[in-house]
Amino acid sequence: MRRQAVKLFDPLKIGGMTIPNRIMVPAMVTHLCKEDGIVTQDSIDRYVRYAAGGAGLIIVEAMAIHQVKSGPLLRISDDKYIAGLRELTQRVHETSDSKIVPQIIHFLKVARTGWRQTADMLSLEEIDQIVEQFGDAVLRARQAGFDGAELHSAHAYTLSSFLSRANPRTDEYGGQSLEGRLRLIGRVMQNVRRKAGKDFPVGVRFNVEEFIKDGYTVVDSTLIAVRLAELGVDYISLSAGGKFEDAVHTPGQVLYPYNGYSGDRCMPGDWLPRALHAGIAAQVKSHLLSKGHRVPLAVAGKLDAPQDAERLIAEGMADMVGIARGLLADPDWPIKVRNGEQDRIVQCDYCNVCKALDGTHRTVICSLWPQGSIQAPKDDPSAQAPQWPQADTSLSSVSKGARVELKWPKAPGAANYQVYRADEQGDPQMMDAVKVTFWVDNSALGGHTYRYFVRPCSPTGKPGQRSNTETVRIPAPDYMVGA
Amino acid sequence: MRRQAVKLFDPLKIGGMTIPNRIMVPAMVTHLCKEDGIVTQDSIDRYVRYAAGGAGLIIVEAMAIHQVKSGPLLRISDDKYIAGLRELTQRVHETSDSKIVPQIIHFLKVARTGWRQTADMLSLEEIDQIVEQFGDAVLRARQAGFDGAELHSAHAYTLSSFLSRANPRTDEYGGQSLEGRLRLIGRVMQNVRRKAGKDFPVGVRFNVEEFIKDGYTVVDSTLIAVRLAELGVDYISLSAGGKFEDAVHTPGQVLYPYNGYSGDRCMPGDWLPRALHAGIAAQVKSHLLSKGHRVPLAVAGKLDAPQDAERLIAEGMADMVGIARGLLADPDWPIKVRNGEQDRIVQCDYCNVCKALDGTHRTVICSLWPQGSIQAPKDDPSAQAPQWPQADTSLSSVSKGARVELKWPKAPGAANYQVYRADEQGDPQMMDAVKVTFWVDNSALGGHTYRYFVRPCSPTGKPGQRSNTETVRIPAPDYMVGA
Repeated sequence: MRRQAVKLFDPLKIGGMTIPNRIMVPAMVTHLCKEDGIVTQDSIDRYVRYAAGGAGLIIVEAMAIHQVKSGPLLRISDDKYIAGLRELTQRVHETSDSKIVPQIIHFLKVARTGWRQTADMLSLEEIDQIVEQFGDAVLRARQAGFDGAELHSAHAYTLSSFLSRANPRTDEYGGQSLEGRLRLIGRVMQNVRRKAGKDFPVGVRFNVEEFIKDGYTVVDSTLIAVRLAELGVDYISLSAGGKFEDAVHTPGQVLYPYNGYSGDRCMPGDWLPRALHAGIAAQVKSHLLSKGHRVPLAVAGKLDAPQDAERLIAEGMADMVGIARGLLADPDWPIKVRNGEQDRIVQCDYCNVCKALDGTHRTVICSLWPQGSIQAPKDDPSAQAPQWPQADTSLSSVSKGARVELKWPKAPGAANYQVYRADEQGDPQMMDAVKVTFWVDNSALGGHTYRYFVRPCSPTGKPGQRSNTETVRIPAPDYMVGA
Repeated sequence: MRRQAVKLFDPLKIGGMTIPNRIMVPAMVTHLCKEDGIVTQDSIDRYVRYAAGGAGLIIVEAMAIHQVKSGPLLRISDDKYIAGLRELTQRVHETSDSKIVPQIIHFLKVARTGWRQTADMLSLEEIDQIVEQFGDAVLRARQAGFDGAELHSAHAYTLSSFLSRANPRTDEYGGQSLEGRLRLIGRVMQNVRRKAGKDFPVGVRFNVEEFIKDGYTVVDSTLIAVRLAELGVDYISLSAGGKFEDAVHTPGQVLYPYNGYSGDRCMPGDWLPRALHAGIAAQVKSHLLSKGHRVPLAVAGKLDAPQDAERLIAEGMADMVGIARGLLADPDWPIKVRNGEQDRIVQCDYCNVCKALDGTHRTVICSLWPQGSIQAPKDDPSAQAPQWPQADTSLSSVSKGARVELKWPKAPGAANYQVYRADEQGDPQMMDAVKVTFWVDNSALGGHTYRYFVRPCSPTGKPGQRSNTETVRIPAPDYMVGA
């Protein structure tokens, strides 16, 4: 039986809420609040911007259920936070039909020495307290006008550390058994339902793979997903990696769980492939369906190419696409894709400046935004496209061995330049987006011919005229000549 | 245009040699030789056994082109080794039409302190020497009667360290450019052809992904494969991981590159999925074809399920399947699959005892072989199947929470017992193969019903009667009751 193809802009029912399309903004740290954890005007502006851009479901950055010291991080650990959160949800709801859901987090302690608290250090009383705190937090989310809540059971945080194959506990919350590892999230869900009501949509985000030594893989995550479905979660959101176990410790800093290999997988840089977790997500989706579970499934990981997002949904590999950095770069991605204006997207180049800012507790922005902005610029379709001076589009190149250095004139009005490359048989691919007027290609193969062009883009992605196309024949390396 | 489906037992032309089927024994350390690096009778017996079992292509464990101290490791660094190697090739050729190819390795120095020599420590003169040594070694392989040679450019060894995205050199052998990283393997291939002849089949094994922080992915490996095809290599063999960068140092021991996460990916244990690199290999294959390169491609990684191996070949995801531990457990896998006797395969359970033996420089055996054997037992189809005593097949179970403990009587003649499990909708899966008469299931989900049975197997895989099927309803966890 072949189901009818679903489209990216079809609505989706998630428990009692209906999201207008399949595009999700996954939780992203912003550092736009202060140590007090209260929503600021900047926080509100960030999420209103996503709502204006038309995302179906906006997950608000993780907010803590407890008061353990941390950097600037939103809190939902006391009723005093509800007023600020209510203003956030109201402003988003006034803006569009996007739904807004907070990510609810508990994390263990970390110290600048590199020490960290691990799951086996928690007493049963502390576990009971965490269970209660999650329930209280989700109730507050409901009171604050959120459309649902998401339990953060991914990456390096408490719920994930219990789910982990590396969970070191020997009691009923671990004990090297899958059921033991599932016990905390199970009790948390039970208490969340009890306190916040069975009709309040609750999703769970967890890792489809841990990507650490001895970590779990899709062998377990299919079973974890089945359990979550049995618990009646309203959606499942898959992430990957982002663990403490392989984090690289910088002396004097707390461990950052995104700077090891598992961090590469969680926030993949430009050397990792697109849609890198789509195949594993599809295995989970297919396993869920085979067991009769129709719970909506979201997946993230370099899904900002519109054709990838559309294919994922059309082929039923997942029900929602999580696009984090792509929507940070351009919150208008949904509207532009819906209007067939893919050409105007401010395209993420996976430079990970946002990740570096997060890692050093600074305000997270996109490096493609205009200098000094802490929010994505408002779209202005009537704005001028950038223009090369006197139509001088003279892109030029110098080859140094297999290294190709490109340069071009400044185009007034350009916020950045997209650099494209095509090889003999291929279509042009965006290789990078830069603010400077030069670029170096280190990944060309000798003996091949490449075509390059550059497009100047306005702050909101309006493209100017393409440069001329520069065709470069890279010399074959000496060892191939006459081979 | 749809090509005709290729089958696992179709022959394949690899340069001047034709292998009788698509089944490859990838290089596996045996530690059957001594520190002198000379082929022993035990080494010969190991490879003759694979030939008798019908593998199409047997890659002999890595042999070194240089004299740097190491554990027991075959050598091809001097003409004095040719005689022993010639005896090996003759004995294999007398046994069957399997082809035999040595893996040729250069590695850098390691010390018990954890120190290791890295690619940037080599002078240009030392690099020139490596280039010469590879050429000399492949010529010796030809003189010894091998059907070809394989250059080891995977895992933690010299050629791979140059290919790596983590290559720290700043000169023309690195310099953060892909061409720089390709320069050593390019020069080696040129010299190998010059010294050993253009008509001698030469393959290259490299990592399809490094699986380390900042390591390369399929984004680069598609381009590396194109370069190898352009260099005219006769086959490409894909492996993954196995790097020093994430190895865990045991004080007093040299680093073992298979005990970190990248080692998990290289020799996946039972918690990693089957056919785990098939999808990435298919991307490389498809990229090669799109560029007009028809060079045969092999891939390895938990491919011992006959249906997986057959599907991979039939769908053209690769041209050969590398089955290492599966063929160590049962060298007769090819003959048994060809004869439709899948039921008689001594099935690898991915317990990785072989890996632990390698890691401690002990003779590598399979834990499913009869106690004390250093080779797989000779097949004997007329042997008795193991029998339960008085047909007492009384498999019994005890549930402790979600933990299920199974036990069964000893069946005389059984070398091991295969434990199978099926859930409600599923087919039985082999969960483990054990020599003892009990097994504990830690991965059952509460609230589900599982069916278990056990099969006693003779040393060569002849199965006795199945035990009774034990049906166990696992109690749902307390937090789900009434949920």
